[in-house]
Amino acid sequence: MEETEKLAFKKILEEKAQAIEEVIKAYLPEKEGLQRTVIEAMHYSVLAGGKRLRPMLMQETYKFCGGQGECIKPFMAAMEMIHTYSLVHDDLPAMDNDEYRRGRKTTHVVYGEGMAVLAGDALLNYAFETALKVFHTCEVDGVPLTDRYRAGAKALSILANKAGIYGMIGGQNADIEAEQAAETDLSRLIFIHEHKTAALIEASIMIGAVLAGAKEETVKALEECASHIGIAFQIQDDILDVVGDVESLGKPIGSDEKNHKQTYVTLVGLKEAEREVKARSEKALSILKSLSGDSSFLQDLIKYLIHRNK
Amino acid sequence: MEETEKLAFKKILEEKAQAIEEVIKAYLPEKEGLQRTVIEAMHYSVLAGGKRLRPMLMQETYKFCGGQGECIKPFMAAMEMIHTYSLVHDDLPAMDNDEYRRGRKTTHVVYGEGMAVLAGDALLNYAFETALKVFHTCEVDGVPLTDRYRAGAKALSILANKAGIYGMIGGQNADIEAEQAAETDLSRLIFIHEHKTAALIEASIMIGAVLAGAKEETVKALEECASHIGIAFQIQDDILDVVGDVESLGKPIGSDEKNHKQTYVTLVGLKEAEREVKARSEKALSILKSLSGDSSFLQDLIKYLIHRNK
Repeated sequence: MEETEKLAFKKILEEKAQAIEEVIKAYLPEKEGLQRTVIEAMHYSVLAGGKRLRPMLMQETYKFCGGQGECIKPFMAAMEMIHTYSLVHDDLPAMDNDEYRRGRKTTHVVYGEGMAVLAGDALLNYAFETALKVFHTCEVDGVPLTDRYRAGAKALSILANKAGIYGMIGGQNADIEAEQAAETDLSRLIFIHEHKTAALIEASIMIGAVLAGAKEETVKALEECASHIGIAFQIQDDILDVVGDVESLGKPIGSDEKNHKQTYVTLVGLKEAEREVKARSEKALSILKSLSGDSSFLQDLIKYLIHRNK
Repeated sequence: MEETEKLAFKKILEEKAQAIEEVIKAYLPEKEGLQRTVIEAMHYSVLAGGKRLRPMLMQETYKFCGGQGECIKPFMAAMEMIHTYSLVHDDLPAMDNDEYRRGRKTTHVVYGEGMAVLAGDALLNYAFETALKVFHTCEVDGVPLTDRYRAGAKALSILANKAGIYGMIGGQNADIEAEQAAETDLSRLIFIHEHKTAALIEASIMIGAVLAGAKEETVKALEECASHIGIAFQIQDDILDVVGDVESLGKPIGSDEKNHKQTYVTLVGLKEAEREVKARSEKALSILKSLSGDSSFLQDLIKYLIHRNK
């Protein structure tokens, strides 16, 4: 992509993110009752900006697979709640101890540590509460009842599996242990990227496909595609920490190195890291192209995300 | 109940708890892979003993309502995982800062604070992952597919709702704020008992009924019954803190008062608290008796729980 194309595409993404934000807002609970504070903390953390990448990939995959109803919406909101809870708990003093995220004070700084633990729990729980609305939302879709229930149940299982110990939480566990250990090897690092980052991207894309009624083999192919996207995205993050543009990246260049954090770049070198991003990006694109339907927007999105320089 | 009857009944409960522990164990994940540590922390916290009261109420209600299949089992395990995660996060230094529970070191003392946050998250997430197995388990039950899906979806929604901001987490929020405030009034205290304690008891009993195919009005009546049980159970806890038997209660008598914690007893006095327990217990029993079927075990269980002296 040329720089001017990138700028135009970025504008489209921002508009889409804005529209997704409205969907998410519609599913957030009202700030009321004796549970008001924790609900405020949920709003504060979820509405802190961000690219809304996961719900966007979900929605675009849903469209690509021919999905037309409303049943994708609760899952888009649920996915962003899960992504957000993981950031809230990650930022805690007992974890990464970060006081700022995207230029705003983190949840525990504003609401206190106990309330931040609770707000994270509340978001994870409410994500399932929200996704379960699929069984009501789908009533309008005109698909046979049993198929709708089966698709809803399948989508929920993917969400739970990819967010849990066999997905994101598993990656988080390996990450905590890697930080405590002096050395990390490449296989552990790929496990971390695959689970901590790629798992929710896989879930987003798979859920979009499942709810649109895609065939099992299509879902399987898209899972592999998403895995390449997620890992390439994370390696690109490691690359940008070394060569990125400090202003737009929002964190100091070289911060990983300063924190003695082992990354894909420190383990295999910049050149090999760039080669890996390119290879995975090509694999992801070739899978998409092999599937029938118009995947041009998804292809552009992948290129943009993987080859971003900020 | 006479003391000898109580002792005999206690033995029955212990045997049932043992059998339930086997069900829970069967649903816990294998300790393997690069997520091994967090899985070990899940096992450590879930298998720390306890009365297994919630899954027991669930199973007994399921039987009372005529349930016969296996589909209750994943929910029994899921309920105990949710109860356990709430204890793990409650015990954190940022919350109650408890180093011991049931005579064993708490999860964060053994595994570190970061891992305890993660283990709690993992248990909550895995609870849904486990409960979602209902859609597979139910395949064997011989009930029409759509009815099974509908019951499974309903049970999942109850679980999510009663564990979340409109249930347990909501109560936790009010509890945290009550501890920070100098004064608590009775309505806030009842809100806390209703949400923090009663909500999961309501969910347990309602899920047992729903999965057994009980009618909407039966589920509604049992929800009210469970609410009385949960609140009475918690008020009895407050009473035992003042008049209980130190050895068997497992915490120092008068610890609430020493912690300047306002309880039902400190707010309305011992006599009124005892009257309230009796009134709620009678209401719960009269609801049970109004429903058709043999509820004698459930009745005994309620009497035992509410009028326990340890």
